[in-house]
Amino acid sequence: MGNVIDIAVISGDGIGPEVVAEAVKVLKFVTNGGKTEVKLTDYKLGAEHWLETGETLPEETLEAIKKHDAILFGAVGAAPGDTRIPSGIIEREMLLKLRFSLDHFVNLRPAKLYPGIESPLANPGEIDFVVVREGTEGPYVGNGGSVRTGTVHEIATEVSVNTAYGVERVVRDAFRRAAERERKHVTLVHKHNVLVHAGHLWKRTVEMVAQEFPEVTHDYLHVDAATIFLTTDPSRFDVIVTDNLFGDILTDQAGAITGGIGLAASGNINMDRTYPSMFEPVHGSAPDIAGQQKADPTAAILSVALMLDHLGLVDEARTVEQAVEKEITSRQELTDNRTTSEIGDAIVALLA
Amino acid sequence: MGNVIDIAVISGDGIGPEVVAEAVKVLKFVTNGGKTEVKLTDYKLGAEHWLETGETLPEETLEAIKKHDAILFGAVGAAPGDTRIPSGIIEREMLLKLRFSLDHFVNLRPAKLYPGIESPLANPGEIDFVVVREGTEGPYVGNGGSVRTGTVHEIATEVSVNTAYGVERVVRDAFRRAAERERKHVTLVHKHNVLVHAGHLWKRTVEMVAQEFPEVTHDYLHVDAATIFLTTDPSRFDVIVTDNLFGDILTDQAGAITGGIGLAASGNINMDRTYPSMFEPVHGSAPDIAGQQKADPTAAILSVALMLDHLGLVDEARTVEQAVEKEITSRQELTDNRTTSEIGDAIVALLA
Ligand SMILES: CC(C)[C@H](C(=O)O)[C@@H](O)C(=O)O
Ligand SMILES: CC(C)[C@H](C(=O)O)[C@@H](O)C(=O)O
Repeated sequence: MGNVIDIAVISGDGIGPEVVAEAVKVLKFVTNGGKTEVKLTDYKLGAEHWLETGETLPEETLEAIKKHDAILFGAVGAAPGDTRIPSGIIEREMLLKLRFSLDHFVNLRPAKLYPGIESPLANPGEIDFVVVREGTEGPYVGNGGSVRTGTVHEIATEVSVNTAYGVERVVRDAFRRAAERERKHVTLVHKHNVLVHAGHLWKRTVEMVAQEFPEVTHDYLHVDAATIFLTTDPSRFDVIVTDNLFGDILTDQAGAITGGIGLAASGNINMDRTYPSMFEPVHGSAPDIAGQQKADPTAAILSVALMLDHLGLVDEARTVEQAVEKEITSRQELTDNRTTSEIGDAIVALLA
Repeated sequence: MGNVIDIAVISGDGIGPEVVAEAVKVLKFVTNGGKTEVKLTDYKLGAEHWLETGETLPEETLEAIKKHDAILFGAVGAAPGDTRIPSGIIEREMLLKLRFSLDHFVNLRPAKLYPGIESPLANPGEIDFVVVREGTEGPYVGNGGSVRTGTVHEIATEVSVNTAYGVERVVRDAFRRAAERERKHVTLVHKHNVLVHAGHLWKRTVEMVAQEFPEVTHDYLHVDAATIFLTTDPSRFDVIVTDNLFGDILTDQAGAITGGIGLAASGNINMDRTYPSMFEPVHGSAPDIAGQQKADPTAAILSVALMLDHLGLVDEARTVEQAVEKEITSRQELTDNRTTSEIGDAIVALLA
């Protein structure tokens, strides 16, 4: 990387371009003072692009994207009523294709309740945990099918595929992250009393990897119980490690209890660095408010912090985080009808 | 059924026997005044029973249970630390075996925030919805396996099996229930943008069945978004219909937002009445407080109301519900350290 970081930018649909614009503003500003030059290359992808070209993610584009140091991602998805686009095609053939092709096995989703942000929970307590969601296996592999489709005899299956290789690397990542945190605690979430085979692979793997981290404690929760604790006692969580589908569910709930997914950042990380990692807000394209400067760019900006961290620009990452934290804390006094770019500007002002 | 109802009672483990005792007290009292005689037959099953006999659910026992009009179920499950019992064996070979063998395709789980009960949500609004969880298919079918188990090359799979037959009957049940409710609205929860084949079967089926119910509106939510709305706007829900696994997750969250699963009742219902239906509190066996008269029997008692309703004793069902509602409403003034049987007695007193 040297003193250049070379970023692929996929703004996508809806509010994607607006929030990415603010994320880029922050990225440029925070690296400007230092020796790091930021190179940005835009890739037009998403539902709009599909409507224009019929392309989801062409091979050449994927190959080009692979050459960058990291990817900054906005959001994709058509308006809910738009029947011109086959349902889920952009999600699967673009977003999930990127995660799978680039081996983003750690889908990292921090959940933090910032001072000044109202939680929908009456007594949220201190919420500060990260979810390490597996990103390349589980029920997301696309191994489903149907026979006698559309008849009364239809059978549709979905196969969750889990490998020792895939589970071990993400579990080890979770323990590593826990070891660096204050509370040093890992919670495995699964449903091993029903999904016996996948569940026991996860359980055995956690027991095994835990041996390497004597300073880290761990426990286990069924996914149904985890949703209860996220409601009644979220401060019990430090690091959650879980599969692709449970991670999808729990991180949306985690976003909700920490004040909304307008603040939730994520990294799709290839820890082996064989391909670029991708950083994206957890929220979607929100077509209903797109183009109106109503979206909160904070999640996208916090995703930049995760990106900087991954690229080794640790000081810059902390600077962005601290600016965001300050900005958020000051919101108590605001009736927040600022525009997307006003919020971005406010964060930039705090970077100085 | 005539004027006798013939109930199989499976109290199970932990707090199961304590809460079932109160449920039976209520059942006897509410039917006593009328012409209905209650016949009760106890079946010893569960973790304790397994430790004594090695039996989960013998064929003869299952056959005997099939002869009853309905089943009242407490809770099963060993203490978490108890390694003598293979993990999940009682859940799968007893509880799930009952649900599957008796074709309990509607797993009905009402979620209601009673006046006087504190929700962990800051602004819960009015919460009053039912989840119609599919009970005989999906990821619960036990169609998983693993190869090279215990090696670094292990692969473990779990297959979700969904049929037009199975989905259609539960979706129709959800629309029927919605048609009888005030708001007449069905929300399908799935993840069809990722679990394409199963998801589209569910979506197509909902579109089809909706034609039969022009007075019922319907919408769709991805399961991750559903956890957000259950946190930020639960009053938007009227009837949720969903698969076995998503239903498991959402109903625990629903229990949490309505004041805890100590109040959440459920019915495992065979709507074709080919086999007896089973009524059980959503909570587990809670070994930590077992035998101490600390458990709240309300969920078990509300499950009796669901049972009476299913058996056509509609007035008796309403009477129980109303007594419970009154009792719960009066809790505001109580520091609730009443015993399990004191709460049962309080509800019985209100039945009169
Ligand atoms: C859009 C969808 C495929 C995606 C997922 O399910 O992973 C989204 O919900 C997320 O969490 O990033
Ligand atoms: C005990 C377990 C098998 C069961 C389930 O997953 O269905 C429980 O969580 C429930 O919701 O009744």
